[in-house]
Amino acid sequence: MDAQKRFEIITKNLQEVIGEDELKAKLKSKKDFTIYWGTATTGSVSIAYFFPMLKIADFINAGCKVKILLADLHGALDGTPWDILENRYKYYEEAITSILKTLGASSKNLSFIKGSELQLNKNYFHDLLKLSTYANVSDATKASSDVVKQNENPKLSGIIYPLMQALDEEYLGVDAQFGGVDQRKIMVFARENLPKVGYKPRIELMNPMIRGLVGEKMSSSNASSKIDLMDDEETVKKKINGAECIAGDPNNGIMALSEYLIFVLKNDKKETLIISRPEKFGGNLEYKDYKSLEKDFISKKLHPLDLKNAVAGELNKILTEIRKNKALKKLYEKAYS
Amino acid sequence: MDAQKRFEIITKNLQEVIGEDELKAKLKSKKDFTIYWGTATTGSVSIAYFFPMLKIADFINAGCKVKILLADLHGALDGTPWDILENRYKYYEEAITSILKTLGASSKNLSFIKGSELQLNKNYFHDLLKLSTYANVSDATKASSDVVKQNENPKLSGIIYPLMQALDEEYLGVDAQFGGVDQRKIMVFARENLPKVGYKPRIELMNPMIRGLVGEKMSSSNASSKIDLMDDEETVKKKINGAECIAGDPNNGIMALSEYLIFVLKNDKKETLIISRPEKFGGNLEYKDYKSLEKDFISKKLHPLDLKNAVAGELNKILTEIRKNKALKKLYEKAYS
Repeated sequence: MDAQKRFEIITKNLQEVIGEDELKAKLKSKKDFTIYWGTATTGSVSIAYFFPMLKIADFINAGCKVKILLADLHGALDGTPWDILENRYKYYEEAITSILKTLGASSKNLSFIKGSELQLNKNYFHDLLKLSTYANVSDATKASSDVVKQNENPKLSGIIYPLMQALDEEYLGVDAQFGGVDQRKIMVFARENLPKVGYKPRIELMNPMIRGLVGEKMSSSNASSKIDLMDDEETVKKKINGAECIAGDPNNGIMALSEYLIFVLKNDKKETLIISRPEKFGGNLEYKDYKSLEKDFISKKLHPLDLKNAVAGELNKILTEIRKNKALKKLYEKAYS
Repeated sequence: MDAQKRFEIITKNLQEVIGEDELKAKLKSKKDFTIYWGTATTGSVSIAYFFPMLKIADFINAGCKVKILLADLHGALDGTPWDILENRYKYYEEAITSILKTLGASSKNLSFIKGSELQLNKNYFHDLLKLSTYANVSDATKASSDVVKQNENPKLSGIIYPLMQALDEEYLGVDAQFGGVDQRKIMVFARENLPKVGYKPRIELMNPMIRGLVGEKMSSSNASSKIDLMDDEETVKKKINGAECIAGDPNNGIMALSEYLIFVLKNDKKETLIISRPEKFGGNLEYKDYKSLEKDFISKKLHPLDLKNAVAGELNKILTEIRKNKALKKLYEKAYS
């Protein structure tokens, strides 16, 4: 695959790339290109995790190596109690593996790394202290503001968080970091601060944020705003049914799930989306891409309720295999009981 | 030596003890009692370092074990450039050893520990992160405010500093920490925060702060406020001569040096302090304790200039052996050139 083609696949659907020229140059100059995506092991895994996983499948298709960092210590720094940290880590590992299986992603060139195993060593600690002598409290506070849960009396952990995320780029030995655009400030902080301790800045790849079912952003603290991986069929139906979705206005979480998840999977398998409707309301509708669905939705030819029923059905199909994973269920109960 | 006697020697001349009852109970219940004194390897060592060393001699005389922590990483966290950190460490080690030799302190029961060797390991780092999830940014900032150099744009290192000083108490395995009363906030922080990560709070022993030659406090950033270990005879004379010392008012750095250093050493050796004075100004004066000197100073029988001459002479005598240490001189040049 030539460098241009690889570049297109890697950046497809991204909202922003920092270091685009570096990315192009890297792809031209060498074969190996390694990207890391990390997640702090905090709240339970939602269906939103399918979005970065779809992108990871792209990276692998473009011949990249991908490292998935399950950042247990970052989980603790963001409030996961220390005594259940290991349980959360195990749940995340199984949950993300399950999602990747559902997506049929190749596990070649893909590796999992546990944060504490990467980070808890002498050199990393030394570099963290070194970085702390260059990083302003105010910069580090701003860097973590979109990621770490905030309160009136911020803990020191929340401002150590972005320094460690910066060092992870170096210690993972990657060319680029990938994350949601909510990671932007931390990524910029990493680019600005890594060179101060003698390391090169990395390329930063950012996915757009997907709207929640209720409110702007999928929020881990608002259960009704997201579909949890562990939600049963009825819960999915209920949540989708209760989601914000005004006839004619495509700016909502239901449409976002259709565009970024359901149609991506359908298109991969060359399938269409069928929306069941009684004959008296015009009979079934069939869409082969998101654009045509959106057109009908805007023109109100497609009613929110019919869309919701179809989306709930599709999500339940997507979650079928994951629900069969009894080990995952057990890990979930240990991690969140 | 009985517990009461040990208690008296340990607490002699201290300004404050936190955990006095614990101290008494410990001394009664067991033989081994370990105290640590630490210093961050920052500015050059001044004659003020004789004060804690005199106290350390007391601790050893009271049958305690003493650990001296040469906190190189803390030096870096407080602004010592990373590339000269090792040189500063080596200088501090030699300088403090020289002071202890001058004082004739027993090296039995006394050990030196290098901060980075104690701290740069997995468990310590893990505990630091753990502590950071309990410690408020504001509390840690306040804790370090009297110790870490402050500026408009504080670095993260300055608020990691007190967390590491707290953990040092645990990792050194000591019963008590000893330091100047400028360490009070950090010590209180340690007592409040160590139990949050499952460790017992330590007893805190505080020396009073000794006035500088100019201004309230000996300041490492104001050379004229302190006598440096490396000052030659002429410099000592000049600095003492330029020191604040108003006739009749004993609240000054010259009197403090007389009370807390010169008379302590004189009394140990059963010597008196002789102040040379021409016959026409009344002839020599001789004091066997500080109180009688103070009385004459307040009544203006003893003139500041005569006192200054005597004090400069005594300090130069105290520094004689240290000045012969050529290795120390070389280490100094490497550390501060």
